[in-house]
Amino acid sequence: MSRIAYVNGQYVRHADAAVHVEDRGYQFADGVYEVCEVWQGKIVDVPRHLDRLGRSLNELRIDWPMARNAVEFVLHQVVRRNLVRNGLVYIQVTRGVSKRDHFFPPAHVAPSIVVTARSSSPTAAKAQAEQGISVFSYPENRWPRVDIKTVALLPNVLAKQNAKEQGGKEAWYVDADGNVTEGGSTNAWIVTKEGVLVTRPAESGILRGITRAVVLDLVQKEGLTFEERPFSLEEAFDAKEAFVTAATTVVMPVTRLDGRIIGNGHPGSVATRLRELFHTATDLQAV
Amino acid sequence: MSRIAYVNGQYVRHADAAVHVEDRGYQFADGVYEVCEVWQGKIVDVPRHLDRLGRSLNELRIDWPMARNAVEFVLHQVVRRNLVRNGLVYIQVTRGVSKRDHFFPPAHVAPSIVVTARSSSPTAAKAQAEQGISVFSYPENRWPRVDIKTVALLPNVLAKQNAKEQGGKEAWYVDADGNVTEGGSTNAWIVTKEGVLVTRPAESGILRGITRAVVLDLVQKEGLTFEERPFSLEEAFDAKEAFVTAATTVVMPVTRLDGRIIGNGHPGSVATRLRELFHTATDLQAV
Repeated sequence: MSRIAYVNGQYVRHADAAVHVEDRGYQFADGVYEVCEVWQGKIVDVPRHLDRLGRSLNELRIDWPMARNAVEFVLHQVVRRNLVRNGLVYIQVTRGVSKRDHFFPPAHVAPSIVVTARSSSPTAAKAQAEQGISVFSYPENRWPRVDIKTVALLPNVLAKQNAKEQGGKEAWYVDADGNVTEGGSTNAWIVTKEGVLVTRPAESGILRGITRAVVLDLVQKEGLTFEERPFSLEEAFDAKEAFVTAATTVVMPVTRLDGRIIGNGHPGSVATRLRELFHTATDLQAV
Repeated sequence: MSRIAYVNGQYVRHADAAVHVEDRGYQFADGVYEVCEVWQGKIVDVPRHLDRLGRSLNELRIDWPMARNAVEFVLHQVVRRNLVRNGLVYIQVTRGVSKRDHFFPPAHVAPSIVVTARSSSPTAAKAQAEQGISVFSYPENRWPRVDIKTVALLPNVLAKQNAKEQGGKEAWYVDADGNVTEGGSTNAWIVTKEGVLVTRPAESGILRGITRAVVLDLVQKEGLTFEERPFSLEEAFDAKEAFVTAATTVVMPVTRLDGRIIGNGHPGSVATRLRELFHTATDLQAV
């Protein structure tokens, strides 16, 4: 079976899924995106992802490419047509195709929409979670509007590649105050030696993660001791455990930071518990 | 005649010029670009633009998509096939097409290259230069690697759009020290009341403009008094004249800044003279 993508009103073979060279996503990074997990044949937290997509579009003054419920329908269609049971569905919306010019295009130019989906292996993810990942810190060097989920991801690419070349799977940005902001494509968490779960408030310097929000709900439900505040890299080195959250990795334990062992070097019990419980707290839509 | 573009080895109708939705330029802003002026049937400063393209690629560790002289040949071909006598030629190189993942793709993935060209009206440009443009300041909010000419241009889009909505044609970024860094797509210059031409050094905070470099050569040749140093927004308000430089606008007088009149409100003599002389100092390649 060939993979199928949705591009501006048509379902096409993934290999043929193309956008014009003057799409503003290509020439100006003038677009936004979302990634939803597909879990056991269900799309996870669609309403929250579409809420955030709407917010991103609104911040950049890009119109919805079509009605929100039509976007939702397409997400389901693309997952279904690709027979994805476990994996992800990706949506990108840009300001559309127009003669190259930094200024916003004329009002008649319609936004572009692309939706793709792909399968991934739950077994591989489970194996990774049982081992934990290695993370490397990186000086925060992104623009201040990281609260908008834009495709201007080049800084994130470079930070994550830097981690990879040292054997890591993720980068943790550290701001001028020495505090961890977030990962290159995840939110960052620690559990202190005193057993307090800590993550940075979403007010500034980070994206308001959907998975982060779900985990916060779980933390409440489980009655875990929790503080929403910035934490420093030094504090993370001394933590009992650490983990990252994102739609693509759910809850993923961090066992090394800048080459130093975190806790006992194995996935922590809080991260492991939150990972197990995660889907009990999500909104699951059958496709 | 339909316009022609060059996309990854093929000359295609501009309307059909497309890249895959998983091109890293589209999903990650993981690419760089150059714009060369076409003037009286000649491409301006090709060697300098290709030097800078090479530097940008090198900084991001993207390979040349083909040999440099082949890229040069394509620039000429695209200008010629579009019968451009006055206008511009645009080249974009990205890290290529690969399954979406922040990390660099496998080594076998080839970079993508797109070249487009279009005509513009020298009469309209002349009329604009005789009138001057209005500029609006904007807080510097880009990442520190503005020395690399990447397509992660969303911050520039928003700064320039902000200017446009106030009746301006360009934004001037102002850093935390109150100094002007550069324009949204131009370099920034002033002439002080004492007749000293001032522009920010290219060492930090700005792109090393090709047009800027040509104008610096002219400044030497003409024996103008010149200082390469940061200047503040306040200093710009008090300047005798101001202007911007870029391949697309060459030397363009600035007559208003944040709604305040600069000098006597008309294009200054230094800017006008530099604009007239500009092409005497460039490297012109017939197409």
